[in-house]
Amino acid sequence: MKNTFGSSVALSVFGESHGAAVGAVLDGMAAGVKVDEHFIRSQLTLRRPAGKISTSRVEEDKFVIESGVYNGRTTGTPICIVIPNENTRSGDYSATRALARPGHADYTAYCKYHGFEDYRGGGHFSGRVTAGVVAAGAIAIAALREKGIYIGTHISRCGGVSDRPFGDMAADIAVVNAKAFAVLDSASEQNMLAAIEAAARDGDSVGGVLETAVTGLPEGVGEPFFDTLESVLAHALFAVPAVKGVEFGSGFALADMRGSAANDPFAIKGGRVTTVTNNNGGINGGITNGMPVIFRCAVKPTPSVSLVQQTVNIMDGTDAELAVRGRHDPCIVHRARVVVDSVVAVALCDMLAMRFGTDWLVNI
Amino acid sequence: MKNTFGSSVALSVFGESHGAAVGAVLDGMAAGVKVDEHFIRSQLTLRRPAGKISTSRVEEDKFVIESGVYNGRTTGTPICIVIPNENTRSGDYSATRALARPGHADYTAYCKYHGFEDYRGGGHFSGRVTAGVVAAGAIAIAALREKGIYIGTHISRCGGVSDRPFGDMAADIAVVNAKAFAVLDSASEQNMLAAIEAAARDGDSVGGVLETAVTGLPEGVGEPFFDTLESVLAHALFAVPAVKGVEFGSGFALADMRGSAANDPFAIKGGRVTTVTNNNGGINGGITNGMPVIFRCAVKPTPSVSLVQQTVNIMDGTDAELAVRGRHDPCIVHRARVVVDSVVAVALCDMLAMRFGTDWLVNI
Amino acid sequence: MKNTFGSSVALSVFGESHGAAVGAVLDGMAAGVKVDEHFIRSQLTLRRPAGKISTSRVEEDKFVIESGVYNGRTTGTPICIVIPNENTRSGDYSATRALARPGHADYTAYCKYHGFEDYRGGGHFSGRVTAGVVAAGAIAIAALREKGIYIGTHISRCGGVSDRPFGDMAADIAVVNAKAFAVLDSASEQNMLAAIEAAARDGDSVGGVLETAVTGLPEGVGEPFFDTLESVLAHALFAVPAVKGVEFGSGFALADMRGSAANDPFAIKGGRVTTVTNNNGGINGGITNGMPVIFRCAVKPTPSVSLVQQTVNIMDGTDAELAVRGRHDPCIVHRARVVVDSVVAVALCDMLAMRFGTDWLVNI
Amino acid sequence: MKNTFGSSVALSVFGESHGAAVGAVLDGMAAGVKVDEHFIRSQLTLRRPAGKISTSRVEEDKFVIESGVYNGRTTGTPICIVIPNENTRSGDYSATRALARPGHADYTAYCKYHGFEDYRGGGHFSGRVTAGVVAAGAIAIAALREKGIYIGTHISRCGGVSDRPFGDMAADIAVVNAKAFAVLDSASEQNMLAAIEAAARDGDSVGGVLETAVTGLPEGVGEPFFDTLESVLAHALFAVPAVKGVEFGSGFALADMRGSAANDPFAIKGGRVTTVTNNNGGINGGITNGMPVIFRCAVKPTPSVSLVQQTVNIMDGTDAELAVRGRHDPCIVHRARVVVDSVVAVALCDMLAMRFGTDWLVNI
Repeated sequence: MKNTFGSSVALSVFGESHGAAVGAVLDGMAAGVKVDEHFIRSQLTLRRPAGKISTSRVEEDKFVIESGVYNGRTTGTPICIVIPNENTRSGDYSATRALARPGHADYTAYCKYHGFEDYRGGGHFSGRVTAGVVAAGAIAIAALREKGIYIGTHISRCGGVSDRPFGDMAADIAVVNAKAFAVLDSASEQNMLAAIEAAARDGDSVGGVLETAVTGLPEGVGEPFFDTLESVLAHALFAVPAVKGVEFGSGFALADMRGSAANDPFAIKGGRVTTVTNNNGGINGGITNGMPVIFRCAVKPTPSVSLVQQTVNIMDGTDAELAVRGRHDPCIVHRARVVVDSVVAVALCDMLAMRFGTDWLVNI
Repeated sequence: MKNTFGSSVALSVFGESHGAAVGAVLDGMAAGVKVDEHFIRSQLTLRRPAGKISTSRVEEDKFVIESGVYNGRTTGTPICIVIPNENTRSGDYSATRALARPGHADYTAYCKYHGFEDYRGGGHFSGRVTAGVVAAGAIAIAALREKGIYIGTHISRCGGVSDRPFGDMAADIAVVNAKAFAVLDSASEQNMLAAIEAAARDGDSVGGVLETAVTGLPEGVGEPFFDTLESVLAHALFAVPAVKGVEFGSGFALADMRGSAANDPFAIKGGRVTTVTNNNGGINGGITNGMPVIFRCAVKPTPSVSLVQQTVNIMDGTDAELAVRGRHDPCIVHRARVVVDSVVAVALCDMLAMRFGTDWLVNI
Repeated sequence: MKNTFGSSVALSVFGESHGAAVGAVLDGMAAGVKVDEHFIRSQLTLRRPAGKISTSRVEEDKFVIESGVYNGRTTGTPICIVIPNENTRSGDYSATRALARPGHADYTAYCKYHGFEDYRGGGHFSGRVTAGVVAAGAIAIAALREKGIYIGTHISRCGGVSDRPFGDMAADIAVVNAKAFAVLDSASEQNMLAAIEAAARDGDSVGGVLETAVTGLPEGVGEPFFDTLESVLAHALFAVPAVKGVEFGSGFALADMRGSAANDPFAIKGGRVTTVTNNNGGINGGITNGMPVIFRCAVKPTPSVSLVQQTVNIMDGTDAELAVRGRHDPCIVHRARVVVDSVVAVALCDMLAMRFGTDWLVNI
Repeated sequence: MKNTFGSSVALSVFGESHGAAVGAVLDGMAAGVKVDEHFIRSQLTLRRPAGKISTSRVEEDKFVIESGVYNGRTTGTPICIVIPNENTRSGDYSATRALARPGHADYTAYCKYHGFEDYRGGGHFSGRVTAGVVAAGAIAIAALREKGIYIGTHISRCGGVSDRPFGDMAADIAVVNAKAFAVLDSASEQNMLAAIEAAARDGDSVGGVLETAVTGLPEGVGEPFFDTLESVLAHALFAVPAVKGVEFGSGFALADMRGSAANDPFAIKGGRVTTVTNNNGGINGGITNGMPVIFRCAVKPTPSVSLVQQTVNIMDGTDAELAVRGRHDPCIVHRARVVVDSVVAVALCDMLAMRFGTDWLVNI
């Protein structure tokens, strides 16, 4: 199942950057979940390029819910959302079709699809495909909130600038979810924006790290051996374009710790089992322990840069040079945030439905 | 599918640390693959605790191939391998059943299985379950080698000591696959062993980082959107106990790079498309580009330490203290290596069979 | 995966009878398959109600290919086809919302979705959802034909009237695929139509049996134990609304045969292994043997009849009476034919891709 | 996933007739289900050849539960059951290796596995593989009974002799489950046995029809579009060797009925919604309606007959003759009954767990 993720709640994506539309089908969501089109729109806006630091291609991301919603609630049957492509300028791309853009999927798509791929603007490999993910994900995010499960992602690092770590989880998640540029410390935003603009001036781009917290998950979610919560979330996260690393809890820093420091001691707090530290990111043996689930994604710098790059002509197998023209972002870290939240929400809805049944999300 | 991984080639695991046996079923492997029991045995030996730095529980890991192999070759039907448990000392564990070991799955398994779990020695969450993975994985590793695809994993870091990075891929993979303690630089081994022994003397443990290279993979393997090669490999890798982070290519270091440096320029070399650098770890857009696939796993320090730890009594909900007794390793990084190779081999066999058909592995 | 079928080539459906649209996503189809919109249209026409014996709701089934097709060929990425609903008259249904139509899914959908289902016109359970299946299936049917694999279905029985069985496979498949009312013997058509019209005059409906032949399949397709070709095809066939029985080869008639008669003797013919009879429908042990694959589907009579029926009010739990008003067909057997062909084509594309690789369908 | 069935509760089978063992892995079953080894043994006995009408190969089917059961209850982790093969006489088969037995999988397995298959006694295609299914199925059957869900299968027809249909469901299910030769009418047994013995005297074999009833299922189980209850059950049923037809409710007889007769009128009875008739077999729109689920399987006559048959030599491609020697049954209908119950039980546990959560089966 190539473009589909999930077992009980499943998300399928379709679409190409310069085709008729992009979109998604969300199947298996409980019947009776409220669908708020304003929230879908606001999530799409967070994903959309905007402002000085983003591409000049501005689409309004008008979406059409083709199925699965009736009287403002999910029906329990598949929800198809189509987002028409507008304002596409294919002329930008056809001239350089033969020149594989370094860091992009042009060459690998050519190998895989033998030249039949829709190469315009990256086709199915364009970040634009994530619009469908975000629209469907908004329904999953809202459903989880009704159950007291909150997801928040901040830009932990961008262009070499760090944000402060999560502190008070509930408050910090609320803070980042209210922001277009999701940082916890406002000073970070200024410094990150400055770094992004500096790269843009150089015809270059920057990457970063997104850190996500999920609160309110019940204990006991996740499966041995192959469907650990880490496995399932990482599967979804590595589908997000540009993500090249995922770590849970203290992640790679655990490699240099001793067991006595890395282990999270258990303690009774308010009558509940908690851990004193959270180096394991709320997951032991692949299963939630009731603490916040914490993870980080490394987002590589946008591969589209206007600097001249060395490449090959995939048609005739010769060396070549390329300066990527057309619209592109010097940074997508801030935009990827809402894509991360979306795939995580769908993955969690799936795991919760598998564990507690399809109606659990709606308290029936 | 909880304990099963893969679509065309699928691996299922079963077993508990102190039950009758552990084992695995490998289904969908092409018919006609040579099965070398000596190689299976040698792989199991690499996984097995041994020497000063490992637990004193030494089992010979006798395995029985119950099905799927005839006349020394795979038949195409499921291969079930059973590895009986011997030398189990359940008495070690029952006394402390109520005290959840920090960093282990005791508490989460209790939440999930309501006390019906086989808690002895960690039960199904014990590292012992990986013996079945390694036995089945050996068949997959050997099949890939016949096709010129080689997997090699070295201990990139352990106990705060770094090994040198991969250089000449073919040579270095051969080197690490010939070693019980898989480092590229012999000096690293001495320093790592010293760090491990120091931790052991303190009743503590250490973690590390495993770095893996895969050579010989054809271009065009991996799927958009949700079954990128990164997604599928990370899914398998996070199933390996103690893995808390996975990164491809330059991984988290990409977050601080600019696009012009992170992008891997293409170049024709020997008539083939190659990349000059390999920051993307041989994967663009989730699909192989023909360069070596490179990734790293963060392995947390063994949670079993003999130091006194704070915990809770999960039976009566009170705070408690615990010193983990019984056999345990001050380090499992060197043992996890062969488990990583095994799950990667199975995942690759699956993706290759999905792409090129079930017979591709045997050239029929 | 509720509304999705297949592993390598997968079909997802969405939509409700009176919502915005119905449609389907076909993922995993090889890149480079020719997409003929005329053929899709003609297949949709075969499914569409038409003439005296069908409902007066006539929609043109305009379809939009939203993705996955470029320059007239598949790109290898998901093909989303949306078929907008037009000419819906919801007023027909709302008045009787509480009265579950016998033989329909009204009551079971209510139980499952707790009243949140889109009940208008049967919602997601309407036969209209099969339009998406047929549109996507047309691409699969055409792809198989390029490989010499032909599917033909005739109305073996309808309203108590029998058609002649398949004789010359190649010729008969061509005959039925050229007909709107797919019978092999023209006299059968007249008698069946008379039976249908008689039922219509009585405010009643009729059922029938569809018989399908598939020629050109290579030997060795199908999997033990759980993915036999019969299992996979039956899974797809029982998804077709109104199908209540599926049999392969001589099917239920085998129950009364002796082994010596039921076994199909092997014989060399033209240098190839063939069978003298085909009681097993081209499948031994769940795997194709190179003979035509033959199966039959029992299609129950359309549950919508205008006669007064006994039912219950699902809102207040009382007994009630119901005469189904609005548009409905006295027979859907002739329309179900193309749905059967479509799901079979997708299932076969999937099994062939799993067996021989994703490019096999396009000879690359 | 070739030899695995199910999503939340999944069954994998392995083994060959003359290899070391056959067996199964049942994963995802709720923790806390009582495992009664006596019941497993009694179910295995029902499957085992016995008496005058069965093969002289008598194995005691000693089984070993390798994992997943602790203190007499399921642990929630995979249950592996191994059934060693004993009393195998491979010499019976090797001489005729090249001669494909008509009606068997010898030829198709050869095509699929290129001669690497374990051909002895049918290898993985032998009915013996169903022993693992039955052992694992016994656990699922027992779990369902604890929830008030009962499965009963009788031999509706065998050797041309019919049994009476189900009448009082609860009583009749109890009756058939207490019998080794599962008929409702004792006179049927004598006549069926006489027919079987007559075929045996002729060196021939007979087939039959199994009819199954499932009571106690809640409403709302089953999924549109592709995972209808009929689709999922048929998928499992067609995996049972020799099953060539499956029909639900009145099945193929519905093809000749009118809608007014085929529709099952709803009526309130004892405060519950029921149907007056049950032509739809307890399933509307692919979803349970609370009535007993009823279906029938056509079982073809055992292909092993001692009469001389026409066949081919698959090694040299010449015509040949064959008289199957060795042990074989003149009838397997009575033995297939418990295999049908087993796959149905696993499929239902899976669908119930998907619908209501993994703990539903144990009331936690």
